[in-house]
Amino acid sequence: MPPSNYQGPPEAWIIAIGNELLIGRIVDTNSAWLARRLTFLGFRVRRIVKVPDEISDIVEELRRAIERASVVITTGGLGPTYDDKTLEAVAKATGRELELNDEALRMVAEFYSKKNLPLTPEREKMAKLPRGSKPLPNPVGAAPGVLLELGKDKIIVSLPGVPSEMKAIFDSHVAPRLEALAPPRALWECSLIIEGIPESTLAPIIEEIARRNPTAYIKSHPKGHEVMGPVIDLRVLASAPDESEAKIIAESIIERFYNEVIKLGGKISQRTCGKPS
Amino acid sequence: MPPSNYQGPPEAWIIAIGNELLIGRIVDTNSAWLARRLTFLGFRVRRIVKVPDEISDIVEELRRAIERASVVITTGGLGPTYDDKTLEAVAKATGRELELNDEALRMVAEFYSKKNLPLTPEREKMAKLPRGSKPLPNPVGAAPGVLLELGKDKIIVSLPGVPSEMKAIFDSHVAPRLEALAPPRALWECSLIIEGIPESTLAPIIEEIARRNPTAYIKSHPKGHEVMGPVIDLRVLASAPDESEAKIIAESIIERFYNEVIKLGGKISQRTCGKPS
Repeated sequence: MPPSNYQGPPEAWIIAIGNELLIGRIVDTNSAWLARRLTFLGFRVRRIVKVPDEISDIVEELRRAIERASVVITTGGLGPTYDDKTLEAVAKATGRELELNDEALRMVAEFYSKKNLPLTPEREKMAKLPRGSKPLPNPVGAAPGVLLELGKDKIIVSLPGVPSEMKAIFDSHVAPRLEALAPPRALWECSLIIEGIPESTLAPIIEEIARRNPTAYIKSHPKGHEVMGPVIDLRVLASAPDESEAKIIAESIIERFYNEVIKLGGKISQRTCGKPS
Repeated sequence: MPPSNYQGPPEAWIIAIGNELLIGRIVDTNSAWLARRLTFLGFRVRRIVKVPDEISDIVEELRRAIERASVVITTGGLGPTYDDKTLEAVAKATGRELELNDEALRMVAEFYSKKNLPLTPEREKMAKLPRGSKPLPNPVGAAPGVLLELGKDKIIVSLPGVPSEMKAIFDSHVAPRLEALAPPRALWECSLIIEGIPESTLAPIIEEIARRNPTAYIKSHPKGHEVMGPVIDLRVLASAPDESEAKIIAESIIERFYNEVIKLGGKISQRTCGKPS
C-alpha cells in the first residue's frame, strides 16, 4: 500500500472476461495492447485479471478494481448471447439498473438494418446499459462500447473482446477521454520519410522497437507503391512527465530506425523532430 | 460462490508476475499455455492475474489464490536480480521463512559450474526457498522451480517466466504431481501415420485444432525427411471425466485431421485408437 502522500500516476486495471481465456483457447493479446496504450497515456497499470463468464466472478473483480483504480477497462462479454454478462455485472457492481439506452439502440439498430437483419431481443440486449452510461460507437461491429463515469475521476469502460472492435473504440472514444484524467504529459514527435524499403520489411522492426518502448507510439503510413517504389512516413510520438525526457525517448527511437534503414539499404529523404501540433 | 455441495473440478489460479506484462511490453503466452494444461489435467482455471514486481501486490494475490484454489501457479520473478521477488512473496503469504535449500543450491551451483561461472550471492538467492519447499530441476535455465505443499490438497508452484524453462519444468515435475490432485480422468489416444505432407504444412492446422480442443493434447513427431519424404506420427490424447467422452473427443479430432490430410493430398498409412498404455 503506497503511503498517503504518494504522488505517482493514477492507477488503471484491466479485466478481461471470457471462459475461452481461462481454458487457454485464446492468448489474450488485448490486455497487452491496452496496457501499452494506458502506460503511454500516463497511467500505471497495476492489475490485469482474467475472469470467466460468471456474474459473481466479474462483479468481484470489478468491485476490487473500482475501489482502487481511476480507470477500469473491461474487454469481452458485450455481445448478444446469454454468455455475454459484462454489462449486467457492471450494473450490479455499481448498484445501478440496466436500462435501454436510446442512443445505443440507434447504433445497434443501424448496424443490423445495414445488413438487412431484424432487431431481435438478443440484439437489443446490447443497448441495455447500466444507468448513466454513455454508448461508444463501434465502427467495426455490432456492440457499442460503454463508458460509465463514477464521480469525477473514476471511469469504467467496457469494450468488446474482438481486437479490431476494441482497438477502434479505444482509439476514437476512450483515449481522448482518458487524456483528461491522466497527469499532464509532455509529448515529442519525430518523423522519417523512408524510401526504398517495403513496409512489410519494416514491420517486424517497428513491432520490436514498439514493444521495447511502451511510452512511445509508433505509426507508419505507406505513401508510395509497396514494392515498386516504397515510401513510408514513419512517426514516433513519445510521452513523458517532462519534455526533455519525451525528447530523449523519441529521438533515440528515431535514431535506431535511421540506422536500421541505412543497414537495409534504404534512404532517408526527410527527418524532423518537434513538439506535436 | 458455489453452494457447499458443489462437486465441480478443483480450482486453479495462475499468477503471472512482472512489470513488463503490465506495461504491455510482453504478451503473456505462458498463462494461456498453463491454462490449457491445467484444463486438460482436469482443473478449472478460475483466475489469471498479472501483477507487478512488488512484494505487497504479489502477496495480496497469492493470499486470495491460496484461500480459494487447490492449485496456485506463479510464473516469473525467480531470477537472481533484485526485481525477482516471487519466493519472498510466497514465504510472506504463507508465513514461512526463506532458507537456503541444499538441493536447490546443488542445482544452481551445477548450472553455473558447467558454464565456468562463480556462485555469487545473487545466484545463491535462487536457492533460498520458503521453508518446506521442494526445488524442481530446470533443464534449460538457472532458476529451479519451487513446489510448496500446503496441507494435503493445496499446492503452490512457482515457475520461471522464460517460456521454455516454464514448460520444461511443468511437464517433467508439475504435471505428474497435479495428476494426483486432479479428479479421476479417463484418457483415450488416437494416432495417425501421415505421409507426404511436411510438418510445417501441418503445423498451423495442428495449432488451430489444438486451440479449439483444450481437453485434448496433440503432438506430432516427424519421422521421415521434412521435404523429400515426410512422415509424421500424429498423436491425440483426450482427457474427460469418463471414457466414452474421451473417446468421442479423440476420435472426432483424428477424423478432422484425416480429412485435412486427404484434402492436402497426403496419405494415411496407419490409424489406431485405444486406451493409452
